Amino acid sequence: MRVQPSALRLLKRLRVCYRVTHCGRAYSHNLSADLAQSSLHGDEIGKLKTRFNFPKATHTIWQIYRDASIQTQLQDDSAPRVVLHGWIDSPPRKVSRTRAFANLRDTQFLYRTAEQLENDKHEASDEEIATIQLFEDLTERPDDVGNPDVVLLRRMKQETCVCVEGHVGRAKGHIPWRLEIVVDRITVLNNAEDFVSQMRGTKDWDPKYRYLQLRSFQFQRALAMRSKVATLIRNVFLDHRFIEVETPLLFRSTPEGAREFLVPSRTDAGKMYALPQSPQQYKQLLMASGVHRYYQFAKCFRDEDLRKDRQPEFTQVDLEMSFAKALDVQDVVESILVRVWKEIKGIELQRPIKRLPYIEAMSRYGVDKPDLRSDIEIFDLSEFATSNTDPDYPVFEILVYRAQNSNFPAAVAAPDGYPTLRVPLSHRIRLSKEESAKWLSRCVAEFDLKLVSDLGTTASEIMKKHDIRDGDVIYACTRQRVPFENPTPLGRQRLKIMQETMSLSDRAVAPLWVIDFPLFTPAESGRVVNGYVEFDYGRLVATHHPFTMPSIDSMPALLVAVEDQSSQVDPRTIIGQHYDIVVNGVEVGGGSTRIHDSWLQRFVLSRILRVPGIRVQLEHGETEPDNPFTHLLNALTMACPPHAGLALGFDRLCAMLNGSDSIRDVIAFPKTQTGADPLVGSPSLVTDEQLGVYHVQLKK
Amino acid sequence: MRVQPSALRLLKRLRVCYRVTHCGRAYSHNLSADLAQSSLHGDEIGKLKTRFNFPKATHTIWQIYRDASIQTQLQDDSAPRVVLHGWIDSPPRKVSRTRAFANLRDTQFLYRTAEQLENDKHEASDEEIATIQLFEDLTERPDDVGNPDVVLLRRMKQETCVCVEGHVGRAKGHIPWRLEIVVDRITVLNNAEDFVSQMRGTKDWDPKYRYLQLRSFQFQRALAMRSKVATLIRNVFLDHRFIEVETPLLFRSTPEGAREFLVPSRTDAGKMYALPQSPQQYKQLLMASGVHRYYQFAKCFRDEDLRKDRQPEFTQVDLEMSFAKALDVQDVVESILVRVWKEIKGIELQRPIKRLPYIEAMSRYGVDKPDLRSDIEIFDLSEFATSNTDPDYPVFEILVYRAQNSNFPAAVAAPDGYPTLRVPLSHRIRLSKEESAKWLSRCVAEFDLKLVSDLGTTASEIMKKHDIRDGDVIYACTRQRVPFENPTPLGRQRLKIMQETMSLSDRAVAPLWVIDFPLFTPAESGRVVNGYVEFDYGRLVATHHPFTMPSIDSMPALLVAVEDQSSQVDPRTIIGQHYDIVVNGVEVGGGSTRIHDSWLQRFVLSRILRVPGIRVQLEHGETEPDNPFTHLLNALTMACPPHAGLALGFDRLCAMLNGSDSIRDVIAFPKTQTGADPLVGSPSLVTDEQLGVYHVQLKK
Repeated sequence: MRVQPSALRLLKRLRVCYRVTHCGRAYSHNLSADLAQSSLHGDEIGKLKTRFNFPKATHTIWQIYRDASIQTQLQDDSAPRVVLHGWIDSPPRKVSRTRAFANLRDTQFLYRTAEQLENDKHEASDEEIATIQLFEDLTERPDDVGNPDVVLLRRMKQETCVCVEGHVGRAKGHIPWRLEIVVDRITVLNNAEDFVSQMRGTKDWDPKYRYLQLRSFQFQRALAMRSKVATLIRNVFLDHRFIEVETPLLFRSTPEGAREFLVPSRTDAGKMYALPQSPQQYKQLLMASGVHRYYQFAKCFRDEDLRKDRQPEFTQVDLEMSFAKALDVQDVVESILVRVWKEIKGIELQRPIKRLPYIEAMSRYGVDKPDLRSDIEIFDLSEFATSNTDPDYPVFEILVYRAQNSNFPAAVAAPDGYPTLRVPLSHRIRLSKEESAKWLSRCVAEFDLKLVSDLGTTASEIMKKHDIRDGDVIYACTRQRVPFENPTPLGRQRLKIMQETMSLSDRAVAPLWVIDFPLFTPAESGRVVNGYVEFDYGRLVATHHPFTMPSIDSMPALLVAVEDQSSQVDPRTIIGQHYDIVVNGVEVGGGSTRIHDSWLQRFVLSRILRVPGIRVQLEHGETEPDNPFTHLLNALTMACPPHAGLALGFDRLCAMLNGSDSIRDVIAFPKTQTGADPLVGSPSLVTDEQLGVYHVQLKK
Repeated sequence: MRVQPSALRLLKRLRVCYRVTHCGRAYSHNLSADLAQSSLHGDEIGKLKTRFNFPKATHTIWQIYRDASIQTQLQDDSAPRVVLHGWIDSPPRKVSRTRAFANLRDTQFLYRTAEQLENDKHEASDEEIATIQLFEDLTERPDDVGNPDVVLLRRMKQETCVCVEGHVGRAKGHIPWRLEIVVDRITVLNNAEDFVSQMRGTKDWDPKYRYLQLRSFQFQRALAMRSKVATLIRNVFLDHRFIEVETPLLFRSTPEGAREFLVPSRTDAGKMYALPQSPQQYKQLLMASGVHRYYQFAKCFRDEDLRKDRQPEFTQVDLEMSFAKALDVQDVVESILVRVWKEIKGIELQRPIKRLPYIEAMSRYGVDKPDLRSDIEIFDLSEFATSNTDPDYPVFEILVYRAQNSNFPAAVAAPDGYPTLRVPLSHRIRLSKEESAKWLSRCVAEFDLKLVSDLGTTASEIMKKHDIRDGDVIYACTRQRVPFENPTPLGRQRLKIMQETMSLSDRAVAPLWVIDFPLFTPAESGRVVNGYVEFDYGRLVATHHPFTMPSIDSMPALLVAVEDQSSQVDPRTIIGQHYDIVVNGVEVGGGSTRIHDSWLQRFVLSRILRVPGIRVQLEHGETEPDNPFTHLLNALTMACPPHAGLALGFDRLCAMLNGSDSIRDVIAFPKTQTGADPLVGSPSLVTDEQLGVYHVQLKK
């Protein structure tokens, strides 16, 4: 696209006319002064108006490098005229009294198509394609020299926002594709405070100026990537015949789950909305509504203390399918992960993704979200020894840190901050000193082990079976048979070894499904006995949420409490149809097959989780009494179909794809650890009148 | 896809075994009784478990009609075996002691591709393609008769959720493509309360049971349509190289705009977040961040009294473009509207969409969002007469309701509830009675008119110019020269005439841009003088929001206040670069070119809108003092590029495409007029402890 000659003439007439010395703060002073005079000096105002008027760009910077017509014209030795918008990327370099260079930058390199990207990646980086050299030669523009109304590149400050008109030429230098713009005219569209020019490139921005940080290539790329991932995911949903449905954010407080943000109602004095922790209940209601397959990029809120991967508001890729079971949901999620890793990282994930039952994840890796980029495993030594120290923690297990496989054969210290007995015992094997059983004798003492044979025989059988050699380090500890302590001490140790000894490429991707979770978790009693956390097996909480379906095989164990109300359900015997998708040790998403039977849902809520106000059995003709789950229980009695679903943590997924430790890198305007946004100053004080309208006041 | 014979055998073994008489409430009673016995009668439990287990569907209903392999097999006189999921759509019809029919329904007809839709629309409606006849012939299943464990179709209640296994045959009747399923086995997946079966089809659902209402074709279609519109819009954004960026919902209270929902902070005692009315400020900060083109389907909140097209939370298609002006934004929005109307309604909108300046919209149609599906216009009679009644309302104007063009030649009464002088005078022309000037003499009396000539001459000139004939009805009133009374009395009258006399097809689409709005609106003084609302021209509010750029031509009038702080800006003289997109009288979206200059923004906020804490001029080196706009003013000083943007009301757009009066028809879970959701019971009471955590208490 070219600017018409007549338009160019018009622009020439409207030429911008303030001096570059009126930059930064001085600029606004000067503007006001100019404008004040404008009513007096009518002909001045025409020029001032042009500050808010500027020609349309003919190209983005990367288009200049790629435009076939420009290439043709350059070959014919003509110099195509262009108009560009962008920022001055670095202070101008003055090479003589009449000549100066600077770079212009824009952010549009992000918007190349896949095909253009493919062509570009062999010859130029994003940064290169996002900038172009500007060349000002005043010997060619004698009229402009000394004219105070003309903006000169040589006086331009870094980070000024400009419109450049000029013609394209080949840049001198050894990179053949490099072009430059010989500047005819430059218009300042907005100035930058001095400190902006000085600070660009600094990583430690004051979060008050988040927008300056976001201008960097790194963040521009992260934002564009996030947008692309969302598009890829939506396309997978469309392929699988999902529809997108939006669910309310002004929800109600529910007794389960994390702490909720409250929103006072104006029209119903004394009542509150709550912001949803997830659309879980609404999406189940959508299944009762006959929506076949639902998805949504859902805004969720949890008022918990923040960590680097937690924000008070976050985005969840939420899905639910009716007439569906685990494999149906997992199939869609695998399609999403495969598509995203392929398109964003160029990595082909293998399907089906590996499945690991919870108990196996806990016993082999010591955590319910194992990072399988390392093959270090934990060995259950129950066939050789069991622990007598705490009857709830009978399983004796070891992790072997093998000398020959590691770059760092020194032992890795245990993580800090745990009770003594929950710190693994560590021991370096020294066969040369004929101490081959010493590690086991230390363990016997520490964990009060009962061995199946004598010390020497047992030690040597263990070492033979698990191929333990001279120089290896053994970490030993105990765990529960079905571990609710999560991670286990050896699980923590394994992670620490990985963090300290492995340099993991972000191209190593180890996804897995963790399945067969315990449906309920015993509450911690609050007491620690001999360093062991005590669990109260009579007081159960939902491991994930109270809507998860028990496995068919667990029904008999679950239903012991149907007739005998005093009988207790053993949480170790009941498996839930829950499934987590884990990538590189990060829980990227969790889902489950839901309870769609109202009786079973009432049974779980009342008998097992003891939610007040819910009874298993209603009288004939009785409608569900008012309780926090009335809506859901009602819906289940009205032919709600079987359904299953899952939610992916979108921020975490994007952070992982971006190679970031923190989800803040992929969120435009994140909150700090205290839940504040220093950029806009939220939260903030409001007036008593504002509060009064909502029938609340600050607590005295 | 077919179920393997071995799988079918397995299913047969697991055959579901409870009687259909155990439906509804009875079902759950019975389930609990069965389950209670299960621990005693071990072999019963296997059967009960199957209630939560069911075969995968081989087809959706519409796929059965369209599956080529099924057609082939039918031609070969074989009966393909299928498994279907769905709901019993109507009570079974028992045609003999052994034979019964019923219809099965699913909602998957919504998910056909465009091509499939094209094929289907010539032969079958959505409703037809969403149901299939079930035929049960017990003479073919003698073993099942009298077996209490076998579920029989003939005893099935309407709306029961089932899995049907059977084989496909041709249905008898005169529709050649109609097929039926001869039932081999039917499994109940969930039952429906009795009243559900009775109420299906009723329009007046208790909103407590919104999910039942959503199961109807009408709402299924509306939800699927909304999802499709979102996809179409996103594709337009992708074509225009936008990226999607999510902005925070925990924002801060700002002094401009509607009443805001507040969210108390737990970590910063006494401070509040506010839910955003729109992402306006964050999206401008994104422009300062170097994001080239931004879009988002943004959740917005306004705590205003609700009307049928207002909800406390709503969705906005939000966009912003840097280095852009009105035409750039309008181009994208036109692309969206053209794409959506084409794909959803099959209607080609003409581009460019008509532009109408505000003053012309007000003078010709009496409202800033005229419905152009009618060509009725208002005539400004200033050349013939002006009003002396109120000096602020000098313009005398008429609307002619022409007898010959109307199906309803009776006069349409004026809308209720307005002061006498703001109700148009109406008069039917009776030339036959030689009363041709009577209407004008009534107007002279009513509005104290000053005529340019004598009564008879003036009346006849007006009637000649505007072709007023016998039987026509004239509505007359006055207005301000630049009307801030919006709609004007004649604008209201015009709308009422359209509503009462036109039967508008939803295929008539009249989009237009209303441009050149007054940047500021005088506040209403609160007084009504002789029926005329009094405006205070010295107290100005932003017509849309304070970030809208004045037109270049208005700069001199705006800037009179720069030097002389006591001088007042006349709101009638200043045009803002705001643009509304209006379709059929509904404001579908509004946008503007923004102020990107910090000085001008401070000038507007402080001098014109008198926001406290903001000064036009900062001292050299002074940073922006703390005020509600600090973040925005700071960003403008840091080379924020020129930018422009717009937001479309997504709910309204979808309601219009759905042919709905109310946006509730296109929102899955809307709030009532009082802001409640009776389905989940929000808002609700919370405990004092919950409030205490947030440092607030209910107001005594």
